[in-house]
Amino acid sequence: MPDFRCTRRMEFVETDMAGIVHFSNFFRFMESAEVSFLHSLGLSVRFQGERETYSLPRVSASCDFFRPVRFEDVVETAVTVAKLGRSSITYEFNFVHEGQPIAKGRVTCVFCRVLESDRLEPIDIPPDFRTKLQPYTASGAA
Amino acid sequence: MPDFRCTRRMEFVETDMAGIVHFSNFFRFMESAEVSFLHSLGLSVRFQGERETYSLPRVSASCDFFRPVRFEDVVETAVTVAKLGRSSITYEFNFVHEGQPIAKGRVTCVFCRVLESDRLEPIDIPPDFRTKLQPYTASGAA
Amino acid sequence: MPDFRCTRRMEFVETDMAGIVHFSNFFRFMESAEVSFLHSLGLSVRFQGERETYSLPRVSASCDFFRPVRFEDVVETAVTVAKLGRSSITYEFNFVHEGQPIAKGRVTCVFCRVLESDRLEPIDIPPDFRTKLQPYTASGAA
Amino acid sequence: MPDFRCTRRMEFVETDMAGIVHFSNFFRFMESAEVSFLHSLGLSVRFQGERETYSLPRVSASCDFFRPVRFEDVVETAVTVAKLGRSSITYEFNFVHEGQPIAKGRVTCVFCRVLESDRLEPIDIPPDFRTKLQPYTASGAA
Repeated sequence: MPDFRCTRRMEFVETDMAGIVHFSNFFRFMESAEVSFLHSLGLSVRFQGERETYSLPRVSASCDFFRPVRFEDVVETAVTVAKLGRSSITYEFNFVHEGQPIAKGRVTCVFCRVLESDRLEPIDIPPDFRTKLQPYTASGAA
Repeated sequence: MPDFRCTRRMEFVETDMAGIVHFSNFFRFMESAEVSFLHSLGLSVRFQGERETYSLPRVSASCDFFRPVRFEDVVETAVTVAKLGRSSITYEFNFVHEGQPIAKGRVTCVFCRVLESDRLEPIDIPPDFRTKLQPYTASGAA
Repeated sequence: MPDFRCTRRMEFVETDMAGIVHFSNFFRFMESAEVSFLHSLGLSVRFQGERETYSLPRVSASCDFFRPVRFEDVVETAVTVAKLGRSSITYEFNFVHEGQPIAKGRVTCVFCRVLESDRLEPIDIPPDFRTKLQPYTASGAA
Repeated sequence: MPDFRCTRRMEFVETDMAGIVHFSNFFRFMESAEVSFLHSLGLSVRFQGERETYSLPRVSASCDFFRPVRFEDVVETAVTVAKLGRSSITYEFNFVHEGQPIAKGRVTCVFCRVLESDRLEPIDIPPDFRTKLQPYTASGAA
């Protein structure tokens, strides 16, 4: 299964008094990696269509932490699509530092149309969006 | 089962361009609620003992998001201890806004002794720490 | 000159590997204190009027740092209005911990009407908004 | 005067409900650009020397904001050394998006030796550190 990879140097502000990168940052890293992944496909997590705005709010996020990383460490993130539902997308993120697994996370978001007053209505993932994600799913590798 | 409750007003910086509080903040909220909970018991997530420093690094965190919250909404968080292991603690956090469930999260951390160079060694949860958490577990309600 | 005061307990996520609260957080603290101040007066930094949305974007922010603060320190912030222009407001923030000055900051924002596509147009500060801020200026004390 | 340049794509989490990048992020961007700048010279904002740890805490930070930037905008930051004191360094940061100035900031930090219990003692900037920064000052261009 192909994946999308990006790297990120850990910043000073991301560390905490324990001397390591604070766990909450990994949820930012996941979104950032997702955006880079979608960007590489000409897609985004929020965009203006011909007549409407589309958004992909998160409904679930989780992460397991295996090893700490520190200021100036370069972390590589591998993104795959763990599940491609009718309107939901579940990504898996594997974080690696110097060949060692650091953390593994999952995020599920739902494809939505933005209605008035920022309200959201889930809709089917549009065919072109789905087609571009397909190769990054397990079945897409077949 | 008793729980610990605290409230928090959603800040402007916590919102995103979708007009809602960004999901990643809930992981900060969970840690903050945990700290308030421990504080109410005279405990902390990192403290100096007689001869050593103790720390409770997170090994796992997850959250499901049910409804969005917005700038200036007041969110109540209820903290319980879902599991009290030999050296691990799993908290559950229920976020509520105006009577409606907003999000539900879990965080597992491990009681550690801080060795040189910020390295961590898991140890058994000290008896006094355990005794104070016990009432907030399901069995503690017996 | 009267001031508005609020307190805040320093959070774990706000610390960095130097063991102190990262300087960038003070700009969040200033906005948070401003919002609490405005909230106490029945005002806000972004709100829906009868027909329009109003917003107060920042055009300038600065802070001098005198002493570090650490995890679980309780910091008191005193807010005053240093300058009340035609459409701009300059706040001053004095941060104190255990009687010692910690930091002193200033933020200038501009009263704006939100036009289409999130564009902003500066307008005169409305009379009721101005009247409520006046007592917190130096001349307001006369 | 030569400068150091780096770019950064604005992230979703950095936006706020006004649809623009929240001003507080620019203080993170400044530190990040400083670290990249120092990194390009083989230096850092916190490092272990032969026998001691050195750190560069911030004593002052300011920023003026000219134009908003939005999600996925690519912002270029130019770093120069505005003032090189005996133990203090003042950086200037110019943020540009599509040829337009976005913001301009300044940060002053002090070269310190880390003593026990994370206490800091200002010391003269070491000669090799100073020599590497000199070309990025106004006089260094002579």
